Amino acid sequence: MSLVFTPIESLPMVQPGDPLPELLLSALAAQGVRLADGDVLVVCQKVVSKSEGRVIELGRVTPSPAARALALTAGGKDPRVVELVLRETNRVVRAQRGIIIVETGPGWVCANAGVDESNSPAPNTAVLLPMDADLAAQRILAALQGRSGARIGVIISDTWGRPWRNGLVDFALGVAGIEPLLDWRGKTDLNGRELHHTVFAQADALAAAAGLLMKKDSGVAAVHVRGYQWQPSPQASGRALIRPANEDLFR
Amino acid sequence: MSLVFTPIESLPMVQPGDPLPELLLSALAAQGVRLADGDVLVVCQKVVSKSEGRVIELGRVTPSPAARALALTAGGKDPRVVELVLRETNRVVRAQRGIIIVETGPGWVCANAGVDESNSPAPNTAVLLPMDADLAAQRILAALQGRSGARIGVIISDTWGRPWRNGLVDFALGVAGIEPLLDWRGKTDLNGRELHHTVFAQADALAAAAGLLMKKDSGVAAVHVRGYQWQPSPQASGRALIRPANEDLFR
Repeated sequence: MSLVFTPIESLPMVQPGDPLPELLLSALAAQGVRLADGDVLVVCQKVVSKSEGRVIELGRVTPSPAARALALTAGGKDPRVVELVLRETNRVVRAQRGIIIVETGPGWVCANAGVDESNSPAPNTAVLLPMDADLAAQRILAALQGRSGARIGVIISDTWGRPWRNGLVDFALGVAGIEPLLDWRGKTDLNGRELHHTVFAQADALAAAAGLLMKKDSGVAAVHVRGYQWQPSPQASGRALIRPANEDLFR
Repeated sequence: MSLVFTPIESLPMVQPGDPLPELLLSALAAQGVRLADGDVLVVCQKVVSKSEGRVIELGRVTPSPAARALALTAGGKDPRVVELVLRETNRVVRAQRGIIIVETGPGWVCANAGVDESNSPAPNTAVLLPMDADLAAQRILAALQGRSGARIGVIISDTWGRPWRNGLVDFALGVAGIEPLLDWRGKTDLNGRELHHTVFAQADALAAAAGLLMKKDSGVAAVHVRGYQWQPSPQASGRALIRPANEDLFR
């Protein structure tokens, strides 16, 4: 069976306080998409953050001495943006050549704690990551399942760089309904031998795939997925994707 | 427009010396898939390596003292497998807790130089990465374009772990016909502001998406993609995805 990704085209520009689950329901309806069991909705982090009001006017940010120092170390970054980064940061992992890699409050390791100036709704503003991406995914799931009766999965995604490889791809941040990891350990390969080290990050793969339709200049902030086989999981959390610091050789 | 990923189901078990492009053509025909301009075919590295005879009997491998030492350092790995890893390696990046991260000859940074014991065609064998994944992609492209007349892209993929995140996803290794990176630098966001740091690793996103249909126990080794918008690029190479060592903060 084929796997079909459909961009949700008619989601309006989201403003602080907007009820995102309702906007998504309207956009799906406008496009004639009827949710069915097994569908997954991937939603870009940016619209979640905007609906939560996580949009900061840089003119109102006073950089601390630490932010000014780090802005210099990292090489010419806006100290006000670095101040926002530090407020979201547990620990700075690397800072040089214009790049600041940090561990965020929930434990994500990413550049600039996900603080982003592009596609923010006004000049001189920056958008922070959602307060709690799992909770945002759960709320969207509850609204969409409540209306449709379909058992679906919801993934909140963001676009991040990677060590070792050029270019950005989309990753899963918040997850509801679908397990982010599919664990094959103990299962066997086609030749009957046990599979090793085979935990598949299916939520990241779904987010990366949806990113093919969420190109930065497309305005697409949500993608509907049909045809992927998965098991419902009420306890799912995106945090399962965070490699614990003591098992991570690169922070 | 939707993006559709279709598993190629009828590819036989590939043996050393098998003409992979011909096998793919037959499998596409058996499934009634007619290639069209803009289609992309993602092919799992494993079948490329098998067709190239990159399957090594471990009984014929004599580990060097360096391989024995590294097997101990990494914690209980088979020294013969480590010997194969070292033969494919430029430089060891990390080795501990059963994990060996290396930089391979072409410059990929990955675990075990891509040497894999699961899904190898016989017990006590290991499969190496393709000799030249770009060349393999070019050969498949030439055969499929020659037969169909359609302008297509070909991606050779492999399943790798990542720093900071649990679980594996699929990445692009060899690429032909389609540019692996889509560079938006200098373009503007929806608000007319210049986009920064926005180079999209579209070949990795396509590989990750195809991976959703290439689950380890599925036996699917190729996926047909229709509906992705891209520009043909005769000079494309997967190596564009390798971050140069002097720009990489994590090796």
